[in-house]
Amino acid sequence: MSKIKVVVWNEFRHEKRSERARANYPDGIHAKIKEFLDVEEDLEVTLAALDDEYQGLPDSLLENTDVLIWWGHMAHGEVSDELVAKIQDRVYKGKMGFIALHSAHHSKPFKAIVGTNGNLTWGRDQKEIIWNLAPSHPIAAGIPDHFILESEELYAEPFYIPQPDALIFGGWFEDGNIMRSGACFNRGAGKLFYFQPGHEYCRAFHNEYVQRIIRNAVYWVKPETSFPIAEGCIKQTVKITDEFQTQE
Amino acid sequence: MSKIKVVVWNEFRHEKRSERARANYPDGIHAKIKEFLDVEEDLEVTLAALDDEYQGLPDSLLENTDVLIWWGHMAHGEVSDELVAKIQDRVYKGKMGFIALHSAHHSKPFKAIVGTNGNLTWGRDQKEIIWNLAPSHPIAAGIPDHFILESEELYAEPFYIPQPDALIFGGWFEDGNIMRSGACFNRGAGKLFYFQPGHEYCRAFHNEYVQRIIRNAVYWVKPETSFPIAEGCIKQTVKITDEFQTQE
Amino acid sequence: MSKIKVVVWNEFRHEKRSERARANYPDGIHAKIKEFLDVEEDLEVTLAALDDEYQGLPDSLLENTDVLIWWGHMAHGEVSDELVAKIQDRVYKGKMGFIALHSAHHSKPFKAIVGTNGNLTWGRDQKEIIWNLAPSHPIAAGIPDHFILESEELYAEPFYIPQPDALIFGGWFEDGNIMRSGACFNRGAGKLFYFQPGHEYCRAFHNEYVQRIIRNAVYWVKPETSFPIAEGCIKQTVKITDEFQTQE
Amino acid sequence: MSKIKVVVWNEFRHEKRSERARANYPDGIHAKIKEFLDVEEDLEVTLAALDDEYQGLPDSLLENTDVLIWWGHMAHGEVSDELVAKIQDRVYKGKMGFIALHSAHHSKPFKAIVGTNGNLTWGRDQKEIIWNLAPSHPIAAGIPDHFILESEELYAEPFYIPQPDALIFGGWFEDGNIMRSGACFNRGAGKLFYFQPGHEYCRAFHNEYVQRIIRNAVYWVKPETSFPIAEGCIKQTVKITDEFQTQE
Repeated sequence: MSKIKVVVWNEFRHEKRSERARANYPDGIHAKIKEFLDVEEDLEVTLAALDDEYQGLPDSLLENTDVLIWWGHMAHGEVSDELVAKIQDRVYKGKMGFIALHSAHHSKPFKAIVGTNGNLTWGRDQKEIIWNLAPSHPIAAGIPDHFILESEELYAEPFYIPQPDALIFGGWFEDGNIMRSGACFNRGAGKLFYFQPGHEYCRAFHNEYVQRIIRNAVYWVKPETSFPIAEGCIKQTVKITDEFQTQE
Repeated sequence: MSKIKVVVWNEFRHEKRSERARANYPDGIHAKIKEFLDVEEDLEVTLAALDDEYQGLPDSLLENTDVLIWWGHMAHGEVSDELVAKIQDRVYKGKMGFIALHSAHHSKPFKAIVGTNGNLTWGRDQKEIIWNLAPSHPIAAGIPDHFILESEELYAEPFYIPQPDALIFGGWFEDGNIMRSGACFNRGAGKLFYFQPGHEYCRAFHNEYVQRIIRNAVYWVKPETSFPIAEGCIKQTVKITDEFQTQE
Repeated sequence: MSKIKVVVWNEFRHEKRSERARANYPDGIHAKIKEFLDVEEDLEVTLAALDDEYQGLPDSLLENTDVLIWWGHMAHGEVSDELVAKIQDRVYKGKMGFIALHSAHHSKPFKAIVGTNGNLTWGRDQKEIIWNLAPSHPIAAGIPDHFILESEELYAEPFYIPQPDALIFGGWFEDGNIMRSGACFNRGAGKLFYFQPGHEYCRAFHNEYVQRIIRNAVYWVKPETSFPIAEGCIKQTVKITDEFQTQE
Repeated sequence: MSKIKVVVWNEFRHEKRSERARANYPDGIHAKIKEFLDVEEDLEVTLAALDDEYQGLPDSLLENTDVLIWWGHMAHGEVSDELVAKIQDRVYKGKMGFIALHSAHHSKPFKAIVGTNGNLTWGRDQKEIIWNLAPSHPIAAGIPDHFILESEELYAEPFYIPQPDALIFGGWFEDGNIMRSGACFNRGAGKLFYFQPGHEYCRAFHNEYVQRIIRNAVYWVKPETSFPIAEGCIKQTVKITDEFQTQE
């Protein structure tokens, strides 16, 4: 069986400019993510960054991507609208899944694919407890009923996302806030997962459960469809009821 | 109580160019829709068309609109992206509901608000039977278990919408096709309803049940929110757990 | 227009046996609920209790009930299975809505209607902050982005409910727990709302937002359907495609 | 890795009494289902029937079942309530998935697990076209946009199921009816899939796509949860916020 082609796209600016971010992720957040995805033998993981040629996603790569993982923050506005349109189209046609991490709640592709302005409440780094609300969902496989992140940036409700197709995790914060922190969206013939932890000053991507959740999500968002998806509206020229078909 | 302000926006091109469309809707599809909305005393209905100044929706009108009903087809591409962004923002912030009729499945605001490419299958005009799948939903109030449209344009699955938040109606077509023909979407703090009948060569907007459904949908999509919605991300500066609050 | 007939059913045992419960609700929790429902002129509110004749719900009353509100705790097992079956049937056929309050998560009708064992985590009384996750939903009308209950019994995740059709409120608790505290379920042709606050030792039903939520929920769960609902499976004897129907 | 333990439970009465049913399924519907499940090497498939000892499901078997597939019709009432309670409990606790086929819409376990009376419309055997509404869902993997069953019993809307968590397939029938024919339900910590084709006088289980769908569904409903599920309400005795946890 051929491998699942995963691209981990990172804005990759904070790690270059901030000592604190670099202390957590010396080679970039994307490199850390690749490290814990590489334990799965059927994943083929490629790194991409905003400052690479074609913003890291030339057509030759994008058209061979099964799952695109996205981390961005300070440079959301620099991502080209043409690239966003290509990503959105590929997800809607069921050719690629998308995983939006942390501050990608305000990224152009997340907002365009899901249909949201991505607004939420935020605040100081603090203790977060993540609760498992959907123990039967594949993304929750291997995750206990709760786990603790000693320090994570507060991202909280109201979070102006549509009602998710499935709500997998909920976050509790010391200051009195909660968050729909892991949420699945079906869009067109494709799938998207949003996961809230992952501030560059904190160490969420070092947590074994965060790693497991992202690995699980790769398998959940990967394309499943097996018939050619419409490029646009299709004129129906034959009556299906006249079609010939044999059964056994 | 103040009235609900409804704007019926119509591309209003087919009715000017086609004898057949004009025969069904002499003053335009929007005028017919206004006619059956006007029976409700608490609705204040305004007409708008693409060829009006500001494409029919100057800020002064848009910012006073509670519910925007949209019919467009041949000129989707002419609608300005700036206007679409304003509409989408208003819906996401819970200031306005949106009803997309028939060929609006490919309109810019429908695609942007819902998050879809809007693709579907289409074909010849034929008999459609619309089934009521959610009799307890307010949009289905007063609608029997099924009703028949003697002639309607085939719009059918695969329809590349996300799994709707509620699926209200399903359509059966003579040629062997089905359609998720009435679907609710919650987006941000706002609501959208898509309803499939309404081809300009057919007479769906003369059908009493179609009329009732659209009236019901106006009440369902109208804004409900009563707290000021975030303009963007809000820095949380106080611990809520320190706040003072009395009960009773 | 005829009034909406609401029955507030209360187990009404704690208030008789416990000084502390009686201090909060001297005439019973149901009487307090009736008090804040009575402010709406189109509601006709009746009280019922487990120790009344026919467990408070003779057929003559049940068959004239549009909305049944349920509070029970220590005597869940005493409620007769025959009564539960009648309640469930009435909800599924769209003749009555159901609101389950607090410890009704383990009541027979809640479990039967929703399809759940109702299990959850519980603990000591403490501060709860309730967050509004669906500001556009009718049940959230008039409710701010959050409000505080100074003392409420901990009810928390994992809560073994199905993914709700709409999740309206989320609860934050001091001890590190969260709860899906306001959740909508569509079942058959009917609707049910579960709301978590309401411990007999606390004073949630004195809180103005709790009162508003329950009032909103009455209007949301009340029956909408307007066609006769199947008593069982119906043999389809005519081809619908042969039916005669005129459109205007 | 250990195999997934599947039990195919069949009422197994029609095939013994009706020549016509036996012609389609000489060894019973369950034997046919086992035949096409056995092509998967990681499935261990056992047959069970109503007239077996313990109605086919002694505790020793049930407690070792990962996925229970159910076909019943004329003898729904004979299935013991105790057995139904055990099945429901096992699904809610995430220990077993459930697949309800065809006339199991009225079976006791389907009704109890989902929370529905299972009522629907039915009629004569006729051509059905099944449309794929969720091409990105694992249960739709390998299924084209539509396929045809030359003859299947009419099962149609209104079908009094709750809004499914995911609607995968829709059925079109010659007589003018439609059906939500493949639907997913999350219940408690478990999962259930309902699939409509499978009348004993027709040959749906010989169709390659029907077979593929049922195989896909086995993998989708199988338990995923990996933490011990609550046996009832759990008293929370420690403040989670005091717990000690190290992150890397």
